[in-house]
Amino acid sequence: MQVKTILLNKNVLEGNDREADILRGELRERGVLLVNVMSSPGAGKTTTLVNLINRLKGELRIGVMEADIDSDVDAVTVARRTGVKSVQLHTGGMCHLDAGMTRQGLEELGIEDLDLVFLENVGNLVCPAEYDTGAHLDMMILSVPEGDDKPLKYPLVFQKCSLVLINKIDAIDYFDFDLQAVRGYIADRNPKAVVLAVSAKTGENMDSVADYFKTKRGEMLCQNKTTK
Amino acid sequence: MQVKTILLNKNVLEGNDREADILRGELRERGVLLVNVMSSPGAGKTTTLVNLINRLKGELRIGVMEADIDSDVDAVTVARRTGVKSVQLHTGGMCHLDAGMTRQGLEELGIEDLDLVFLENVGNLVCPAEYDTGAHLDMMILSVPEGDDKPLKYPLVFQKCSLVLINKIDAIDYFDFDLQAVRGYIADRNPKAVVLAVSAKTGENMDSVADYFKTKRGEMLCQNKTTK
Repeated sequence: MQVKTILLNKNVLEGNDREADILRGELRERGVLLVNVMSSPGAGKTTTLVNLINRLKGELRIGVMEADIDSDVDAVTVARRTGVKSVQLHTGGMCHLDAGMTRQGLEELGIEDLDLVFLENVGNLVCPAEYDTGAHLDMMILSVPEGDDKPLKYPLVFQKCSLVLINKIDAIDYFDFDLQAVRGYIADRNPKAVVLAVSAKTGENMDSVADYFKTKRGEMLCQNKTTK
Repeated sequence: MQVKTILLNKNVLEGNDREADILRGELRERGVLLVNVMSSPGAGKTTTLVNLINRLKGELRIGVMEADIDSDVDAVTVARRTGVKSVQLHTGGMCHLDAGMTRQGLEELGIEDLDLVFLENVGNLVCPAEYDTGAHLDMMILSVPEGDDKPLKYPLVFQKCSLVLINKIDAIDYFDFDLQAVRGYIADRNPKAVVLAVSAKTGENMDSVADYFKTKRGEMLCQNKTTK
């Protein structure tokens, strides 16, 4: 349950896309699937990761990087509740992560004995979507209390993500949230996105999320074999 | 119910603080109180403004500027549900507003017949807190489903705001949210902040919010008289 905290250096933004591609390639070659997790503050990123990791850790070796402006709350929570290797990344006030910062985090985390790494980005629907972290998959979490109009207001993050979780679905009777409508808004912006309604609190449908990542890691290994 | 949409030009950031001070002074001289409203996506900024404006519009002449990456949802909602003058500001992908953008919005809105203007900032707890818009007051809305740890994770926005609303308080039994703890976290960062637990949906405690703004506008007029 050791949790390191790293203060990230600001990366030169120019060339981030290229750096991201290089990082993605290196990780792929080593069979490490990197997943970038984005959401608003309080949508449930950490709770979702804890629930998910506890379903996956019997089969996959997992590491977590938790980005935050300057608290250590999340990495400690993940380490305590899952036992997997976690590091806290401090962005020093910055609103997003880029590929250089992600690489710094991975170096601290150490990936030699890992199959799957989750990167919890800063809670923000705007800036993180604009920077390629080098992840193979982008996942976002929209929580029911935030409202079903978010794909209209923050289209980029929905366009970028291959997996969208609609979290806190257990609270849907309490809020004015139209699941059918939100599926339509997401499909308009990103027809290929997989959309799963879940509750990280009750565990509802979280097995489907776990299966999704097992499949994706398997696909990566399979592609590696094919190309070698 | 006319709603204009303005695409904002990117302002040179250098000198923003000075520009903000000039704008604040000009508005003060004309007796127009400008309030900058910040929160996460989906915390209830628009619903809160609609509820608040309907309580205030009998006594004060109000205008609203709704900032968003690229949708028009909010300005239309405010105009339809309150009847007050509204403009939509498109930030062109930017994650915040600065003083120059705010001035552009005010020019479109027209302030000659207004007492109070609300500026709904982009839904984001990081970037908007870093830029002075020229507002006299900064208000933030934290909603119960987001969790009580947000002042630990996004300290700057809590430091900056003179008024913090804890919204969706009607849902507190449903979520694991410690109101006493969050008041403590806010007080640690900003001992002068006024913290009000409200529900914009049910109207609970919204009269106190309306009173707060009536008092603040009165104080501004009083100060203007004293200094003239």
